Amino acid sequence: MSGRAAARATAAPSTSSRLNIISIVTDDQAPWAMGASGNQEIRTPNMDRLAREGARFVNAFVSTPVCSPSRASFLTGLYSTQLGITDWISPQEADAGLGLPPGVVTWPEILRQHGYATALVGKWHLGTKPQFHPRMRGFDHFFGFLEGGNRPMNPTLEVRGSNQTLKGSLPDLLTDDALRFVEAHRSQPFALLLHFRAPHMPFGPVPEQDQASVKGLDPSIPSVPGLDVEQVKEATREYYASVHSIDRNLGRLLEKLEQLGLDDKTIVLFTSDHGYNLGHHGLWSKGNAFSITGGVRGPTRPNMFEESIRVPLLIRWPGVVEPGTAIERMVTQVDTLASVLGMLGIPLPEALRQEGRDFSQLLRGELSDWPTTVFGQYDLHNSGLAYMRMARTAQWKLVRHYYANFLDELYHLEKDPTEMTNLYRNPEYQQIRQELEGQLLEWQRSIGDPVLSRSPQRPWH
Amino acid sequence: MSGRAAARATAAPSTSSRLNIISIVTDDQAPWAMGASGNQEIRTPNMDRLAREGARFVNAFVSTPVCSPSRASFLTGLYSTQLGITDWISPQEADAGLGLPPGVVTWPEILRQHGYATALVGKWHLGTKPQFHPRMRGFDHFFGFLEGGNRPMNPTLEVRGSNQTLKGSLPDLLTDDALRFVEAHRSQPFALLLHFRAPHMPFGPVPEQDQASVKGLDPSIPSVPGLDVEQVKEATREYYASVHSIDRNLGRLLEKLEQLGLDDKTIVLFTSDHGYNLGHHGLWSKGNAFSITGGVRGPTRPNMFEESIRVPLLIRWPGVVEPGTAIERMVTQVDTLASVLGMLGIPLPEALRQEGRDFSQLLRGELSDWPTTVFGQYDLHNSGLAYMRMARTAQWKLVRHYYANFLDELYHLEKDPTEMTNLYRNPEYQQIRQELEGQLLEWQRSIGDPVLSRSPQRPWH
Repeated sequence: MSGRAAARATAAPSTSSRLNIISIVTDDQAPWAMGASGNQEIRTPNMDRLAREGARFVNAFVSTPVCSPSRASFLTGLYSTQLGITDWISPQEADAGLGLPPGVVTWPEILRQHGYATALVGKWHLGTKPQFHPRMRGFDHFFGFLEGGNRPMNPTLEVRGSNQTLKGSLPDLLTDDALRFVEAHRSQPFALLLHFRAPHMPFGPVPEQDQASVKGLDPSIPSVPGLDVEQVKEATREYYASVHSIDRNLGRLLEKLEQLGLDDKTIVLFTSDHGYNLGHHGLWSKGNAFSITGGVRGPTRPNMFEESIRVPLLIRWPGVVEPGTAIERMVTQVDTLASVLGMLGIPLPEALRQEGRDFSQLLRGELSDWPTTVFGQYDLHNSGLAYMRMARTAQWKLVRHYYANFLDELYHLEKDPTEMTNLYRNPEYQQIRQELEGQLLEWQRSIGDPVLSRSPQRPWH
Repeated sequence: MSGRAAARATAAPSTSSRLNIISIVTDDQAPWAMGASGNQEIRTPNMDRLAREGARFVNAFVSTPVCSPSRASFLTGLYSTQLGITDWISPQEADAGLGLPPGVVTWPEILRQHGYATALVGKWHLGTKPQFHPRMRGFDHFFGFLEGGNRPMNPTLEVRGSNQTLKGSLPDLLTDDALRFVEAHRSQPFALLLHFRAPHMPFGPVPEQDQASVKGLDPSIPSVPGLDVEQVKEATREYYASVHSIDRNLGRLLEKLEQLGLDDKTIVLFTSDHGYNLGHHGLWSKGNAFSITGGVRGPTRPNMFEESIRVPLLIRWPGVVEPGTAIERMVTQVDTLASVLGMLGIPLPEALRQEGRDFSQLLRGELSDWPTTVFGQYDLHNSGLAYMRMARTAQWKLVRHYYANFLDELYHLEKDPTEMTNLYRNPEYQQIRQELEGQLLEWQRSIGDPVLSRSPQRPWH
């Protein structure tokens, strides 16, 4: 195995020996909603199979906990503020001309330059104007939708350039197209990005067989006073059913790879665009979660809680990754570009600006001086206002809230994994706070973080 | 009565005929916490007496629902953004030099120029640096505290220029000094501002007799799912006891006026710096209220709910106001400067910039083309970020949240007095929305609202 890896690293592989890559990104799926992470209630046999046959990153994070900026980071290796996309792109913003800046390179674009057939099947949510269209941003083929939203059943999708309303469930329809793409490109290197919208709200309707996966389930939910227990359990069942609809389609895809004899020649990467709170901390949703302890939708809690920033990350890299590997080192989705290129043996373009680290070395089981801190950011401007910056180590999480005076957070993740006790102003922890603040500041400077140069809005300044 | 009023309006009164004024401002007291507003559980006999002997404004509002900016508006007739004080002044901000701008005129300053002895007894919270000291801002006498906080029992107070820790309850100690001031100035026109910190948190401890006022009380609390009913009831009892401690001291003051024969020569104005939510909407506190439906302190809900912006406003104006008058017209605390001068027969200084209307005409029972819309604003930057602007009529409330995309609010107060149904995006109500937005914009322009010229922080602009 390591022989093959070494060979790939030293010699530019010929076209025929090149591995394909399939990137599967789910929408709003926290790792707590996956069997492979230890959840014994949800049914995700195919995700679990990927974990068994490949590697599972135990500590995979996003750098920003909502959809559009996270997807943009995933594709470019840049942080959201570097891309000018810092919250989910609203329809109004899309109409006003917000999208993934045309000057920024995506990794499918680089793969295409190296002879890969590239496809985006599913969700884009990085601009609706013509200059942002996936076909302008590195994809030969697009079947899906440009906006953030769609119906789980009988959706309207862009098919060969025009919108059609199709019959069936969204994950099934997307997977149908993915299978067609794989079939059609079986003999050439391809990069297929199959980006689901499930398990995003609305969770249903889902096909009968996915509903059946939660029938009679009495799911465990977070123990938080004031939750409407029945409502949260019902939502959890629906969420699980939606995850199951992905898992089932993931199974179809893995089976197709087997049938075509491509499973040995295809890297499969499975992740999500960020995590999710479903009652955790009394909240519902992601980085812009809102309180649900009062029986009604309550105030927004801009947050970088573990539930929001952790994602599943499974990589089956045939012939290289030891099956069933668990990787503890912390990675973020900003590392994806460098790592995909690393896995495929494609050098990083020299002039390319990107912020990620190539985690293919971790997948090869190589020792490395891997960073021990990951950084995150989120500028909320849709359902409230917040300008958060995060530094997280294995033990600690610092969250700074720019322009607001008294919201900064420091958690001792080892002693306080549910982040209940904010130590930011606790005199005992000022040394670690300062150390993390120093690291955070250094990172912010390195990415040209606008909050450092923009003056606070407090009028007395 | 109206004869006297007319005389006062036409001729400048001689010093001996001048009325005194006592301004009592409580801290965080919503009108729902006053017997005169219809609460049958709280015991406020002296507030009720004032309402009986004078006028009660049924629709009195603040223009901003937290402490420092509200107090600043009350004293100057200007809106908070015009003063550069838009949230409560934090200790750090006070240290950095934030305070009521020295160039801005307060109404006690004007009264002093007209021969009044002026005193602030109690809370200032408009700057701690020497240039902001009450003695620099219109007050001959100051007994109280410069910061926002203090202890309800055995507080530290500034007495003749130096800090002393005194024995006793804060409202009692302040009232003791107020009584001394009234005694000492019985023979000359005086303006006494007795500005309590009660019923601000911590509500207690309060003296035994105030505790007795809530003994055995099972208070009504808002019907909101997820509230910790016992906690809210206990807090309500404590809040009521704290209000009682003011009421009892108000009684002492009214009695002293009687004893000295000053009750007929003294206008008594009673109000609060803003309202309060104690479980209302599932929240606790004022414009920066936080969710309490989850058993723990939840996210901040920046708000202009009725509970936050409504205040008690009672005015006993002997010889002019018909006892037991209820005034429906809407006023805000920005009107105070013009109205105090109006009641005392002192003309507004010609060059003075102020935004209020003189409501003494309403107190005289005169017909008037009184404005039918009140405006409000709140820039939250301590416990979150928000830039709210409000237009409120008898029927409607519009709240715009600047820089945030999807938070704007429109309530039909007549049909929906508890503000549960946000109609902002409801197609049926776009006409009223536009009309209110037009009024709001006109007002914002008139006060030079900084949110109109400051560009939003969204990087894509």
